[in-house]
Amino acid sequence: MDKDALLDYEYPDLDPLPSKIETEQIPPCEPTADDMLYHISITAISLVIMLILAILARRTKTGEKQKGLPGLLSPVNFLDQTQHKGLAVAVFGVLLCKLWGLLVSPNPLPFTTDSKNKQHWVILGVFYYPTLYYPLLACGTLHNKVGYVLGSLLSWTHFGVLVWQKIDCPKTPLIHKYYSLFSSLPQIVCLAFLSFQYPLLLFKGFKSSESTNATEDLSSSYYGDYVKKMLREKKPSKISSLRADKPKLPQRISDAVKSYIYTPEDAFRFPLKLAISCVVSFITLYQMGLVLISAVVPTLQTARYGVDENIANVLAGFQIILSPDKHEVARIVVHYLWCVEVCYISAMTLSALVNVVLLMRSMVLHRLNLKGLYRGDVYNVYNCQRSIRASRPALVCWMGFTSFTAAHICIGMIIQTLVFFLCLLIAVFLIIIPILQRQNLILFQLLWSMWPFWLMILLAVLIQHITARFCFIKKTAGTQDLNNRGNLFLLTYLLFTVNVLIGVLLALWRLIITALFNIVHMGRMDISLLNRNVEAFDPAYRCYAHYLKIEVSQSHPVMKAFCGMLLQSAGQESKAAQRTRDAEEGIQLVQQEKKKNKLSSAKRARRRWWLLYTLVNNPSLVGTRKHFQRQTADSFLNGSFKRRAMEGGKKEATTKEAEAAADN
Amino acid sequence: MDKDALLDYEYPDLDPLPSKIETEQIPPCEPTADDMLYHISITAISLVIMLILAILARRTKTGEKQKGLPGLLSPVNFLDQTQHKGLAVAVFGVLLCKLWGLLVSPNPLPFTTDSKNKQHWVILGVFYYPTLYYPLLACGTLHNKVGYVLGSLLSWTHFGVLVWQKIDCPKTPLIHKYYSLFSSLPQIVCLAFLSFQYPLLLFKGFKSSESTNATEDLSSSYYGDYVKKMLREKKPSKISSLRADKPKLPQRISDAVKSYIYTPEDAFRFPLKLAISCVVSFITLYQMGLVLISAVVPTLQTARYGVDENIANVLAGFQIILSPDKHEVARIVVHYLWCVEVCYISAMTLSALVNVVLLMRSMVLHRLNLKGLYRGDVYNVYNCQRSIRASRPALVCWMGFTSFTAAHICIGMIIQTLVFFLCLLIAVFLIIIPILQRQNLILFQLLWSMWPFWLMILLAVLIQHITARFCFIKKTAGTQDLNNRGNLFLLTYLLFTVNVLIGVLLALWRLIITALFNIVHMGRMDISLLNRNVEAFDPAYRCYAHYLKIEVSQSHPVMKAFCGMLLQSAGQESKAAQRTRDAEEGIQLVQQEKKKNKLSSAKRARRRWWLLYTLVNNPSLVGTRKHFQRQTADSFLNGSFKRRAMEGGKKEATTKEAEAAADN
Repeated sequence: MDKDALLDYEYPDLDPLPSKIETEQIPPCEPTADDMLYHISITAISLVIMLILAILARRTKTGEKQKGLPGLLSPVNFLDQTQHKGLAVAVFGVLLCKLWGLLVSPNPLPFTTDSKNKQHWVILGVFYYPTLYYPLLACGTLHNKVGYVLGSLLSWTHFGVLVWQKIDCPKTPLIHKYYSLFSSLPQIVCLAFLSFQYPLLLFKGFKSSESTNATEDLSSSYYGDYVKKMLREKKPSKISSLRADKPKLPQRISDAVKSYIYTPEDAFRFPLKLAISCVVSFITLYQMGLVLISAVVPTLQTARYGVDENIANVLAGFQIILSPDKHEVARIVVHYLWCVEVCYISAMTLSALVNVVLLMRSMVLHRLNLKGLYRGDVYNVYNCQRSIRASRPALVCWMGFTSFTAAHICIGMIIQTLVFFLCLLIAVFLIIIPILQRQNLILFQLLWSMWPFWLMILLAVLIQHITARFCFIKKTAGTQDLNNRGNLFLLTYLLFTVNVLIGVLLALWRLIITALFNIVHMGRMDISLLNRNVEAFDPAYRCYAHYLKIEVSQSHPVMKAFCGMLLQSAGQESKAAQRTRDAEEGIQLVQQEKKKNKLSSAKRARRRWWLLYTLVNNPSLVGTRKHFQRQTADSFLNGSFKRRAMEGGKKEATTKEAEAAADN
Repeated sequence: MDKDALLDYEYPDLDPLPSKIETEQIPPCEPTADDMLYHISITAISLVIMLILAILARRTKTGEKQKGLPGLLSPVNFLDQTQHKGLAVAVFGVLLCKLWGLLVSPNPLPFTTDSKNKQHWVILGVFYYPTLYYPLLACGTLHNKVGYVLGSLLSWTHFGVLVWQKIDCPKTPLIHKYYSLFSSLPQIVCLAFLSFQYPLLLFKGFKSSESTNATEDLSSSYYGDYVKKMLREKKPSKISSLRADKPKLPQRISDAVKSYIYTPEDAFRFPLKLAISCVVSFITLYQMGLVLISAVVPTLQTARYGVDENIANVLAGFQIILSPDKHEVARIVVHYLWCVEVCYISAMTLSALVNVVLLMRSMVLHRLNLKGLYRGDVYNVYNCQRSIRASRPALVCWMGFTSFTAAHICIGMIIQTLVFFLCLLIAVFLIIIPILQRQNLILFQLLWSMWPFWLMILLAVLIQHITARFCFIKKTAGTQDLNNRGNLFLLTYLLFTVNVLIGVLLALWRLIITALFNIVHMGRMDISLLNRNVEAFDPAYRCYAHYLKIEVSQSHPVMKAFCGMLLQSAGQESKAAQRTRDAEEGIQLVQQEKKKNKLSSAKRARRRWWLLYTLVNNPSLVGTRKHFQRQTADSFLNGSFKRRAMEGGKKEATTKEAEAAADN
């Protein structure tokens, strides 16, 4: 925002009728780096790079650890918690910004200015841009110096041309003169990140040519650390937490505040897809806010600057006479328009803030849900028993999750801004302005004229609460029971009619609170906006639930740690020894099993024990075992495991059952 | 509705411009039974009756079973499932109708025509009417012939005068000429019921002067029957239900339909307050529907009859030219107005139907919830662990529950009618009329012009579903797992942008479904409109939850059966023997305890066993025991009992624990 825009929000009382500013004519600007030429050449370059990478991949295929051609075709592993997330996140950010430009701009594709068939070009663009930015991802896949060099060159080109274009043509006639500039900021940031990241990877690659392997998913230390952390953690004993007194109010408030602040935890990493979703959400928030501001505020400002004394005649035509003095009328209208503008900007800001806070809350909840499902706590997360397994709908929801998040934040923000705007308008024009001007106090007069009604309601509520507290409830021997039943029934009968009126107020309050809650949480997919029994009818929540299923069934950290161990123990004996010691450390934490563990030194026995522990501590994995064929038995076992886990001191039974399951 | 009104809804195509009917002038009608005189005399009569009843109550106080003066001051026991509900329900119905008249009529009280201070008179009326109809309830309290005679006389007077007034003045100028008549119909029905019921009670009283005692709450056979039924019922084994396959679609549909139809059960009776709530809800529905119809439809009809060829000039003033022929324009406008009318009436009818269906559903749910809580299934009902006990907020909510139900249905119906009306208007004017007239197909043209977009969305969705089904999921050894991960990731990346567009449609769908669900269920207090984690913030649901607490803690049928047994075994030995046999019958159904029961014949031991069974089968009662002092221990035990109850074959442990609890 430039200084003029800021000055606009000082109340215009000195000079109520600013001299009309001529609307700035922005000439269509042709950047030196012509968009069409740039796109044609960059497409060609990308193609060449992909070819080079493919040849490179074929050659290095002989190296065991390298991924080869198939790796090039799936440059990003979405089911991964350990890989460096930066590259993928940045590319998705760039893609989202491009999609935004595609929808907003009149010429969606640079190859044509045919604005008649915009729709067709948009559809083409929807598939063109992911392909265009694909090499940016693919260059990092091979973990190869040549790949990094190509990636650096490509990202520098993208970044350089974009910045050059924006410097050439900072103002465009689209929506608002600076809209295009501000809109491309996240894109510039993402490209800058890529231009910085690729050289960094190259540098690291020079330094230690072997360490690239460490970024491989299964051999990462993260999963091992997670398992160790998990084994070390003491189970929260359910009984003690139930016996504990209710926390006091300050404690509860601070807990509530904390649940809205996301603090990273060492022993937990987000799956890649969730990380992408979060960044995409932030970018969507920014873009949506920008559109909402720049599409409406300039229009309002133009209207405000356009007000002159003729407005008095126009209003008089509608029988509205604000003041006998025409100049005064214009002044009032300008003031009101200014108020509308302030309301709108406040509503937009409020909506953006709300969404940021809820995004943080979502992240906290994502982590809780994932951890809960890793533990097998299906019932707490889904409120019903479900089998955590890949299925067709789950997979479709998983594929779309990131995109859906962005779309929901979009729609949510539009609705929030509208509703907040209306509420603020009502508040300002019915409450604040009347109070400040001490006239037109219609609302207050109405409420004041109803004082006997309010008094009656208040008294009725008070009487019920006081009598309930002091007359109708008696405490004897620690329990509370009813007293004076006769009088209670009499009072209930006599207050029936008053309570109907109280009920009307209650119903209105319900209406407001329900609407507000649902509108505020419209952009969040991780909670259902419906009643708990019909949660699944909320399409967004249903999608989220399915997404979690895939995420948990496919990238359970304990399972991955286990797979990693198996792989390593097969290949590298020396490293495996180290790793086994680590695992033993974790295992020895559980006291009662120590002895048995020491007795059996055979490899087979040890492996069985690992399996056992994995299954006992992660009952949700049971269903994915090969021999565990029946669908229903799965969900049953899940349930019974959980129930057993809730009971404190029945370790033996659980272990036996797991043993039996392992023997199958 | 008279015939004219029905004729109105045949499409007026033959004579599009009906000759203007002169609006019928309804003269203010003074009924022969002047309202003021009637009220003064009936108040006096009621006072006299109350005095007679009080004297009677004092005299008969010596009789042990009679209630005496305190009974007269609490004529209705709201915490009762067995008493004859008719009287109380009818009086509440009359009261509600009077409250309605109070709010709608310009002269709320018959004593004055001072319409300036209407508010004060309404407040006075809110307390006057419950007092006025109090004797109608009190006459039935003493179970005394004199009381029944007085009750008959009083209800005949009320009924006779009301019917006389309505015959004298069927038409009033209020809202609609027949509004007043229709509005008093439920009141007439309720009074007619009372006029019939009191003589019936008197007749029964003559027949068997002793049988009145049988209606006393605790000595009723209902509670005993309930306990027997409960003991006979087999517990649904959790495991088998979990193992069972998912029911098929037709089964699920018929289950869903059944859950909306309330069928009475022999072994379960509603608490009185719930029964009153249901009747009050029905009356509210009727009154609200009547107001909505009679306040709006006549106005629309008047507007329609008032349309003549001048309308063409008015519309031309707004640049709207429907047709060059003025007569044709008037015809079109009349047709459109007729459509609006039909939409409004359909919306109102739809809203009423929806509410009736949901009321039935509520009754089914009430029964399920009550039975669940009787069983101690607190978690399933409340979705969290709560102590079922009388407390201040619970008592206040319990007192207001019936009234709040009525108010919520009121507000719910207004909102539903508005929203349905808007939706129907949109459907009719954007879809149905354009299709019928084959012009102005704006919506269809818009959708058709976007066909490439729809095609792209459809294809993207199809591709994802088909590939997910056939390429990315493989079934091996009974489990489903991911396949072709590389291609899955590639597709996810490429379809990112398309999925954002799909997500926008999904978000709109979410918006519609959430809004519709919450609007439709606005009138129901037994479900929360909020997310399951913040359910308690919905004031209506909070009230319902509290209401259930009081109902269950105070009128648990098993507890009442137990109390009744104790009372009877103390007094009448002969009857007690019979009753004990009955109880034994129930007890003997459980096999393993039979032996012990036969060995111990001492009364003390038997009582202890009764207590034990009561506690084991109704864990929610544990909290109300005298020695069970700690609050938290209560909720813990509740929880552990429930969990134990879930596990099938651990009877012994449970029994032992309960024994320990009983010994405390």
